Amino acid sequence: MVMSYSTKLSKKLETLGAEDGCKLSIEANGKTHIGTMIHHHKFSAPDIVILKLKNGYNIGIRITDHTVIKMLEKPVIKYKTDTAMEENKSLPTLVFIGTGGTIASHVDHRTGAVHPTFPISDIVRAVPEIKNLTNIRTKMLFSILSENMDISHWQKLAEAVAEEINDGADGIIILHGTDTMSYTAAALSFMLPNISKPVVLVGSQKSFDRPSSDAFTNIIACVRFCIQSKKAGVYVIMHDTPNDDSFAVHLGSRVRKTHTSKRSAFESINTTPAAHLDGNGKITFNMKLPECMNRKIKAYTDMERSTVFLQCYPGMNPELFRDVIMKSKGVVIAGTGLGHTNENMVPLITDAIKNGTVIVMTSQCINGQTNMNIYSTGRDLTNAGVISVLDMLPETAYVKLSWALANCKDINDVKRTMKTPLVNEMSERRVF
Amino acid sequence: MVMSYSTKLSKKLETLGAEDGCKLSIEANGKTHIGTMIHHHKFSAPDIVILKLKNGYNIGIRITDHTVIKMLEKPVIKYKTDTAMEENKSLPTLVFIGTGGTIASHVDHRTGAVHPTFPISDIVRAVPEIKNLTNIRTKMLFSILSENMDISHWQKLAEAVAEEINDGADGIIILHGTDTMSYTAAALSFMLPNISKPVVLVGSQKSFDRPSSDAFTNIIACVRFCIQSKKAGVYVIMHDTPNDDSFAVHLGSRVRKTHTSKRSAFESINTTPAAHLDGNGKITFNMKLPECMNRKIKAYTDMERSTVFLQCYPGMNPELFRDVIMKSKGVVIAGTGLGHTNENMVPLITDAIKNGTVIVMTSQCINGQTNMNIYSTGRDLTNAGVISVLDMLPETAYVKLSWALANCKDINDVKRTMKTPLVNEMSERRVF
Repeated sequence: MVMSYSTKLSKKLETLGAEDGCKLSIEANGKTHIGTMIHHHKFSAPDIVILKLKNGYNIGIRITDHTVIKMLEKPVIKYKTDTAMEENKSLPTLVFIGTGGTIASHVDHRTGAVHPTFPISDIVRAVPEIKNLTNIRTKMLFSILSENMDISHWQKLAEAVAEEINDGADGIIILHGTDTMSYTAAALSFMLPNISKPVVLVGSQKSFDRPSSDAFTNIIACVRFCIQSKKAGVYVIMHDTPNDDSFAVHLGSRVRKTHTSKRSAFESINTTPAAHLDGNGKITFNMKLPECMNRKIKAYTDMERSTVFLQCYPGMNPELFRDVIMKSKGVVIAGTGLGHTNENMVPLITDAIKNGTVIVMTSQCINGQTNMNIYSTGRDLTNAGVISVLDMLPETAYVKLSWALANCKDINDVKRTMKTPLVNEMSERRVF
Repeated sequence: MVMSYSTKLSKKLETLGAEDGCKLSIEANGKTHIGTMIHHHKFSAPDIVILKLKNGYNIGIRITDHTVIKMLEKPVIKYKTDTAMEENKSLPTLVFIGTGGTIASHVDHRTGAVHPTFPISDIVRAVPEIKNLTNIRTKMLFSILSENMDISHWQKLAEAVAEEINDGADGIIILHGTDTMSYTAAALSFMLPNISKPVVLVGSQKSFDRPSSDAFTNIIACVRFCIQSKKAGVYVIMHDTPNDDSFAVHLGSRVRKTHTSKRSAFESINTTPAAHLDGNGKITFNMKLPECMNRKIKAYTDMERSTVFLQCYPGMNPELFRDVIMKSKGVVIAGTGLGHTNENMVPLITDAIKNGTVIVMTSQCINGQTNMNIYSTGRDLTNAGVISVLDMLPETAYVKLSWALANCKDINDVKRTMKTPLVNEMSERRVF
């Protein structure tokens, strides 16, 4: 659904010489609204003009034949265009890859809903302090909400990251919706095992065009980390508290969105964040991270697409899930407690394993680690061939299993790989 | 698999006059072990004798023809038997209902595994300070690990609770495995909507026969809460910290096991615990709770058994889950973020709703609440008829939907019921 202004409204604006960035006065419903005319997004209705008011809020005004619009000021050109961005040879170069999400979204003032259509170059230009720190290249890869991220998007993203790094980028910042950002971070971690530069995923909980957006501060923290840390790896950087003076750098394989709404929505699970940044960009490392290197990298993007992820619950009917499990090459179960299922699931699990399915056990507790030697159910599952992956997150296990099934040479290699930490996604030994 | 001593070993012990509780010296593999002979559980191998050593640890010793066993002391009778427990008319009466789980388990010294076979009367007798506070009745309902709890167990448990309360009990303490304790707590909350006394579920993270068990302290906290609080409702009481001086009283509809192993494994989600107890039994209330009443109660135990619980993830294939969803009368989805699925799930969800399936959206973030008005995917799902249940836990939503489908008069009543807090399982309005 692409919408532009109606023919009538277009003509009216043209006659006035009104364009994005100009100051208008609009009289509607007995009130006079004064503000800066902003971009007419494709989701806005054809008879709506959007003004950014002085208080920072945006308002959408329906224009009828009777609405009086006055032109107050011509637009001020604030930013240079993309083509005019000069490269400073003494500075590093970061590549911003846009994928969509709240961080690259605008509010549809007709419905109050948010759509992922904000051009990435606008975002970068709106944080001018970045330009003193780094050269910037931008690449708009997708424009989707992250709940629509799929395996094919992970693959294109990993290829794009490898290409940019091999082309000389000193770091990659990926603007991403928060919903599935941790799944993507895990996928990139496995797809780019020999990553030689920092690759940071970042999102925001409020969209860029809202006064309280966390987009700017999160982006600045990413730039500082990429430039100052000199650490390679896949990370997620988001607010560590609701305030703007603490940012957490999470390992891409150990992070989870644990709150629907607050700024500090992401947590490192079963480990500390890799590092913290304060509001001035000072980095405190909480663990040893790999140093940056000058080497070409390769993306290993093959993924098995039949893998499924299931959470066990009382009353789960094995017969209902028989087809789902038997048709899959890999199943990750978020079991109860230390990694259990109801005993009535054991025959199905046994059948699936005999049929060549790899079944991996994680815990729906999320924190802690599986231990399938303590209780009889755990031992029955182990005897059936279920693989316990200790403190690996269920979501990371799902991503890793999909990757391992497509990249390992045989089923035993898959099983060995699942039990071996590749990118710090699990502890080497029991820690709880 | 029931095992007792081998015929040969039985005779050897009989000749010595050895029985549970006697002190033995056993020479095996060149070492002499001295300790108290303890009960030969049905899971122990037939040629193993178990000694409790002076340091509190237990050891299993294989007895061969050459093992030398010496009888050192006859058993000391410590506890009265069940029948000798006298009722003190001036004290309240609590009913302990045993269901199994770690709190009622012993360690199998052959394998190191834990089995749920500890008699509930032994547990209660082992916490002698309770007897000064209350009369105790015990009821061993099941002896299962809680991963094997099923809807039929919830039903029997609710019936037993109602029966005991209608028979004059002042409170009920349910010893339960921790794996699915929060699911059971939610089920009892909905099945006993007019509960008139405290019903407390309690578990332990280490079994009763281990020196570091949290079973005793948790049980004492439950007894104190039942006697002193005079509050009705279904609660879970467990350690609030790893120390023995703080216990959290969680609402049964708002609690989750969020750690596989630590003592303070349970958390109230999207609310504070209802109350805290310190190590001396002092209660601090964090919210208003219903007062105890003297009224008969009824258990509403019908449950729809076709309900399923699914977590959405990138790469989820709607075709693979078509049968699971279409065959179910109710589906609870743990969506991403504010309550989303990949847009490729929308046609299936729409079909299922047209077919009469009730689909309820929760968030896999666990903390926070669904809001399906902000992003286009959420609005598409709302338009399809998906029900958003704000800050209700996914697991609680699964239990509630199963209950509502069996207890409401029609599908519109189910939908209304899902959106209405019944037992404090969700907030009345948006809080985040």
